[in-house]
Amino acid sequence: MLTVPTWINGCAIDSSNNQFSSLDRGLLYGDGVFETIAVIKGKPQLLSHHFKRLEKACDRLSISVQLSLLKDELGLFMSTCCQDQKPDKAILKLIVTRGCGGRGYNPSTATEPVRILQWHDFPDYHKTFSLQGVSVIFCKTPLAKNPVLAGIKHLNRLEQVLARGEWNNSAIQEGLMFDTDGHLVEGTMSNVFLVRQGVLLTPELNQCGIEGVMREHIIALAKKLGIACSSATISRAILEKADEVFLTNCVIGIWPVRKINQMTYPLGPVTRLLQKNNEF
Amino acid sequence: MLTVPTWINGCAIDSSNNQFSSLDRGLLYGDGVFETIAVIKGKPQLLSHHFKRLEKACDRLSISVQLSLLKDELGLFMSTCCQDQKPDKAILKLIVTRGCGGRGYNPSTATEPVRILQWHDFPDYHKTFSLQGVSVIFCKTPLAKNPVLAGIKHLNRLEQVLARGEWNNSAIQEGLMFDTDGHLVEGTMSNVFLVRQGVLLTPELNQCGIEGVMREHIIALAKKLGIACSSATISRAILEKADEVFLTNCVIGIWPVRKINQMTYPLGPVTRLLQKNNEF
Repeated sequence: MLTVPTWINGCAIDSSNNQFSSLDRGLLYGDGVFETIAVIKGKPQLLSHHFKRLEKACDRLSISVQLSLLKDELGLFMSTCCQDQKPDKAILKLIVTRGCGGRGYNPSTATEPVRILQWHDFPDYHKTFSLQGVSVIFCKTPLAKNPVLAGIKHLNRLEQVLARGEWNNSAIQEGLMFDTDGHLVEGTMSNVFLVRQGVLLTPELNQCGIEGVMREHIIALAKKLGIACSSATISRAILEKADEVFLTNCVIGIWPVRKINQMTYPLGPVTRLLQKNNEF
Repeated sequence: MLTVPTWINGCAIDSSNNQFSSLDRGLLYGDGVFETIAVIKGKPQLLSHHFKRLEKACDRLSISVQLSLLKDELGLFMSTCCQDQKPDKAILKLIVTRGCGGRGYNPSTATEPVRILQWHDFPDYHKTFSLQGVSVIFCKTPLAKNPVLAGIKHLNRLEQVLARGEWNNSAIQEGLMFDTDGHLVEGTMSNVFLVRQGVLLTPELNQCGIEGVMREHIIALAKKLGIACSSATISRAILEKADEVFLTNCVIGIWPVRKINQMTYPLGPVTRLLQKNNEF
C-alpha cells in the first residue's frame, strides 16, 4: 500500500490506524480544498500566502475549518517530519474537506471539517527546465467556465487529470489549457505568463483556473521591478505572437517555455530578470 | 465516527481495518465515478442500466476497472447486507476511483482502481412528495459547460454541493440548476422533465448534467406509452410556460413539481400516466 507520512486531524496515521473514512465528502464529491507548499531546508515557503488562499477557498465553499488549529498542527507536523528526515527540499500537502456526511449533496449534513497533512518527496525535475526552458503542448481538454468555482484550489480536478493524461512523453513538461471559448487559462499544474512588447500578461482567472500563490508573487515582484503587468483575456493568436512565455508554480518556481508544439520562443530578458529576482 | 457497511476492493472494513487511503485520487482530485442504486426487497433496481452507465463513465475517464469483479463483489455484498438486515428498501452506493497515486495529476501514475460498496438507509421521503408533488426553487449556482465531463456521474460534484447549500428549508424539496448560459439542466439530485402541449421535454445533457438512469428509463417508458418525447435546449421562459413539470431519479422515482418559487403547476395527466406505469 502506497503511503507517505500523514496526519489526519492532528493524529499520525499508519496502515493499522488509518482514520480516513470512505464517507468523507472530499472523496464523495471533491468537497474540499488543498494547498501544495514547497519546503526548503525545513521552512515552508510563502506559507502566509498559502493560508490566505486556503482561507478564501474555505470561505467560498462555506467550510468552517479552524485555521489556527491547522496552523498549529502544521508546525508540529513539520518538526516531526524534519526530525525524522531532513531533506533540502520536500513538499507539504494540505487538504481540508468538509468532513463526513450521509448520502446526499446537502453540505449542512457534514460533520466537522477534516484536516489532512501529507509529506511528499520533492519532484526530481531536471535543472535544465528552469535554466534552459521546457517544451509544452496545447491540451484538447477544455476548462469549463464557472465564476463560482474560479480561482480557488478545490478538489474537483478532473479537467486537469484528463488534460495531463493527453501526453505520456518525457520530452513534454507541461500542457496549456484553454477555456471552452478558446481563451488561454493556465497549464495543467502551473500558471502561465507571456511578455509582449515589454509588458507582462497573464490570463484573467475570474471564470476558471487556479490563482496560484507563485502567480501572485510574480505579479508583485514584477511591480517591484517596474515591469508593467496585467491580467487579460488571451487568445491563442496572442499567445503565439508572444516574445516570451513562462510557467509558474510554488514547486517549479519559473520555467521558461522554449517550445509550444512546433513554435519556438527565446529565453528572453523579462523572464531572466524575474528568475534572477525570485528567491523561490 | 460515522460508518455504514462498506467493502473496499471486496473486503469488509471497520474502524480497526479501514483500508481507505488519503492518497486515493478519488479524494485528491475527485478522480472517479459513482452510482446510487435503489434496493427493493433485496433486489438492486435497474442494475444493468447502472453498470452500463458506470462502464461508459469509466471509459470516458480511462479508468480500467474490472467490471466483472465488481459485479461479483456486489452480489456478495448484497447477500451479506440483506442477511444481516432485511429492509424493504435500502441504497447501494458504488464508487470507483482511479486508485492511489503520488502527488500530481498524471493519471498514469495511479495504482489499480479502487472499488467501494456502501450500504445506506433509504431516505425517509414523505409519501406526499410522489403523490401530491413537491416545491422547488431556482438555484443561483450555475453548472459549467464542458462536453468532456457532461453526462457521466463523476466525483467532481462541488456545483451540486453549493447549489444544495442554497436552501435549508424543509418545505423545499429540490433546486433546479441552469447552465452558465441560463438553460435549464437538472435538479441538484434529479433530472427534470416538462410537458408542453402533450409533448415530453427534457434538457439535452451534452454540455453538462448527469444522464440519470431513471431519466433514460422514463424516456423509454414514454416511447412505449406513445408519448412524444425529446431532449432539447430549454430556457427558463419555456419552463415557466410548461403544462406539467416533474423530477426523476432512481431513489425518488417520479416527483411531480407543484410549485417553482411562486409559480404553481398542476399534477397533470402525462405525469400521472408515467407514474402509473413506472414500476420503480
